[in-house]
Amino acid sequence: MGKLEKMEPVALREETVAGNGLVNRRMLLRGALFSAGMAAASVGVARADDSVGADAPEWMKTPGRPFSAYGTPSKWQEKVQRIFTIAPGRAGTGVSRTPLHLLDGTITPSGLHFERHHNGTPDIDPARHELFIHGMVKQPLAFSLDALMRYPMETHIHFVECAGNSGAFSQAAAPQITAGELNGLLSCSEWTGVRLSTLLAEAGVTKDAKWVIAEGADAAAMSRSIPFEKCMDDAMVALFQNGEAIRPEQGFPMRLLLPGFEGNMNVKWLRRLNVTDVPVDARDETSHYTELMPDGKARQFMFLQGAKSAIVKPSFGMTMKGPGLYEISGLAWSGAGKISKVEVSADGGKTWALAALSEPVLPKALTRFRLPWHWNGGPSTLMSRAIDEKGGGQPTRASWIAQYAPGQGYHFNGIQSWGIEADGTVKNVYA
Amino acid sequence: MGKLEKMEPVALREETVAGNGLVNRRMLLRGALFSAGMAAASVGVARADDSVGADAPEWMKTPGRPFSAYGTPSKWQEKVQRIFTIAPGRAGTGVSRTPLHLLDGTITPSGLHFERHHNGTPDIDPARHELFIHGMVKQPLAFSLDALMRYPMETHIHFVECAGNSGAFSQAAAPQITAGELNGLLSCSEWTGVRLSTLLAEAGVTKDAKWVIAEGADAAAMSRSIPFEKCMDDAMVALFQNGEAIRPEQGFPMRLLLPGFEGNMNVKWLRRLNVTDVPVDARDETSHYTELMPDGKARQFMFLQGAKSAIVKPSFGMTMKGPGLYEISGLAWSGAGKISKVEVSADGGKTWALAALSEPVLPKALTRFRLPWHWNGGPSTLMSRAIDEKGGGQPTRASWIAQYAPGQGYHFNGIQSWGIEADGTVKNVYA
Repeated sequence: MGKLEKMEPVALREETVAGNGLVNRRMLLRGALFSAGMAAASVGVARADDSVGADAPEWMKTPGRPFSAYGTPSKWQEKVQRIFTIAPGRAGTGVSRTPLHLLDGTITPSGLHFERHHNGTPDIDPARHELFIHGMVKQPLAFSLDALMRYPMETHIHFVECAGNSGAFSQAAAPQITAGELNGLLSCSEWTGVRLSTLLAEAGVTKDAKWVIAEGADAAAMSRSIPFEKCMDDAMVALFQNGEAIRPEQGFPMRLLLPGFEGNMNVKWLRRLNVTDVPVDARDETSHYTELMPDGKARQFMFLQGAKSAIVKPSFGMTMKGPGLYEISGLAWSGAGKISKVEVSADGGKTWALAALSEPVLPKALTRFRLPWHWNGGPSTLMSRAIDEKGGGQPTRASWIAQYAPGQGYHFNGIQSWGIEADGTVKNVYA
Repeated sequence: MGKLEKMEPVALREETVAGNGLVNRRMLLRGALFSAGMAAASVGVARADDSVGADAPEWMKTPGRPFSAYGTPSKWQEKVQRIFTIAPGRAGTGVSRTPLHLLDGTITPSGLHFERHHNGTPDIDPARHELFIHGMVKQPLAFSLDALMRYPMETHIHFVECAGNSGAFSQAAAPQITAGELNGLLSCSEWTGVRLSTLLAEAGVTKDAKWVIAEGADAAAMSRSIPFEKCMDDAMVALFQNGEAIRPEQGFPMRLLLPGFEGNMNVKWLRRLNVTDVPVDARDETSHYTELMPDGKARQFMFLQGAKSAIVKPSFGMTMKGPGLYEISGLAWSGAGKISKVEVSADGGKTWALAALSEPVLPKALTRFRLPWHWNGGPSTLMSRAIDEKGGGQPTRASWIAQYAPGQGYHFNGIQSWGIEADGTVKNVYA
């Protein structure tokens, strides 16, 4: 029982709940690990009391910056940016991703919400913008922004995820890119607006209505067919995002929000809602956002984003700083409702432990999961798998891939894995 | 039964729940009001179907703006700014307020979080910043930001409110200023960080500890004495705010978060935690942030922010656009826990109706309340009152004032009132 044995905290071993060092998610609540001063898990540096803060840093010796009308992140955070891919010669067509690996919590800062534009972000004068409801209604109506602001509103936290998110997992070799590049067509905001059912009832929908064609006021007039049932359920005309007017890239002055449905259907810069009995066969529901099957046929109208999870800490691009205590942290979500549980493995799927979920766990919202991990310094494979309240789970990547034609990448929700190497580097692996 | 009678929706009268037009908060869920196409409550404008969207606006005729690395609000929102008061000649000392009347939902955009600085915002290099824990501990410790990131974290939505918020209500005449100017030393964010109890246990606190002196790394070295019980309860060293690294004005790279306690104690740019058995008698707990009583004595260490509410829509600066349906909307909060209920009056407190609360209602977080209101065009006085889960409520302004020496304005939580005049203007009134 030499010095090394004393450095290994006894409590930690007792609290191990799965292979390769996964620690009970409740360890902190029970105070099991941190109880006796300088427990071996400590990653703080010991100091003598008289050496603590003796040298004040220079920023304590001069007055700080004055007030600002609208704040921005620290200059030290300038690398925390959206990650963008732009079609050559078409600056407004493409995507930008949320850098999930540089963030924590569940809300996405509005400045970092992912973007998917088909002809750029229009500059809409809110005083001139109108939302039209027409087609199979008793009375076509036009709503100004001022008019909408008088209706009863609702506030809900929901994710929006592009149907093409995580499509890189359809590649034959595991791409060595960050968690944000892999999964960052995914963001979560607090949305406030008017229930679409309120506005449809104002216009008086006729009884044969089966679809609502939503059209945006961008130069692509981006359109999608929305099932009428969804419009009468939790669909919202969102006016506010994370407390303030919705951002231009997310649809200022208003967007359609269809909680849990693929991002493309949540039409931004919402201008027209045409109530019909047939879908419109828009470009983005025929040539895009369909699932190509092995027999060459494509499945259309697969709206729901399935149960899914991804570890973002640690992840590709980070380096472990030697054996010891770390937090494994990631995001879980499902378009079907609340996340029921997330399990984490540190041994490539042989054993699994329950992760802690940050409360409140909300339906169709990002849920942060966490688990303490004592890394022993050896090669390890980290995985996560989520189950939602409807019983939806995640297949292995291999079984997900087997369902489709080669290269089909929409609606990927397979289990993802990070390989930790002995030198502390983190790689994307197909485990 | 003339034309005017037909315009008055029958459902609305049935659903009235308190005097002067307050409508049942569940009216939309029951579909009572909007059921028959062009109900008289409609504020949409009727159109012929072939006139809907016929003239595409110019922003649909040209490609939109390209992608951005970090987004900002629409240029049409440039008036949505923090409202600041700066001490003459001291640009970094004073306050800026959140423009609550221009926002909706419960999260405050980080760029609009209120500010209260004592010597400006320091520009801290996060790689050189350390958090020291010392004093009555077994082993003084220094934590780098990297070290803190390895500990198990938690994510919670909480408000921060300055003890001096709403102090203008101590003025003899009702000040004619906006809801943001009145109540905007109040913001709500999703905070992520490490429980303070985890870090204190790492250092090993000795048994006589009763206080922790928290000190910031600003040029004022702003310090406050925190009761040890709070430090072992829900106190957090927050590293992330609304998903990204905490903003400079809120303490980058880390701040103390004491859910429900007055803002000043939530020390920003947190640098030292000195565990002691006596409070430090810092400037901001002796000359400031105490409550002056009628007998000339001052109460010290009144930490908790009480139950409180404020209507922000309609509010001063807005104009009602004629009789008809409006939404009354506001915020309720309590440092003691969750809001149990909010009641709204449209007749100056004679009758009250239950407001709808946006779910989830979270402890020590802003809660949005809403109630539909059919304004009949006559003079009206709107009020709100909140009760928290511990039974805490709001006194009238007069009885709150009577407790203190004249001019004492800390911890105001009296009932607030807006007067609506027949021409649609909104005034702050002491009702």
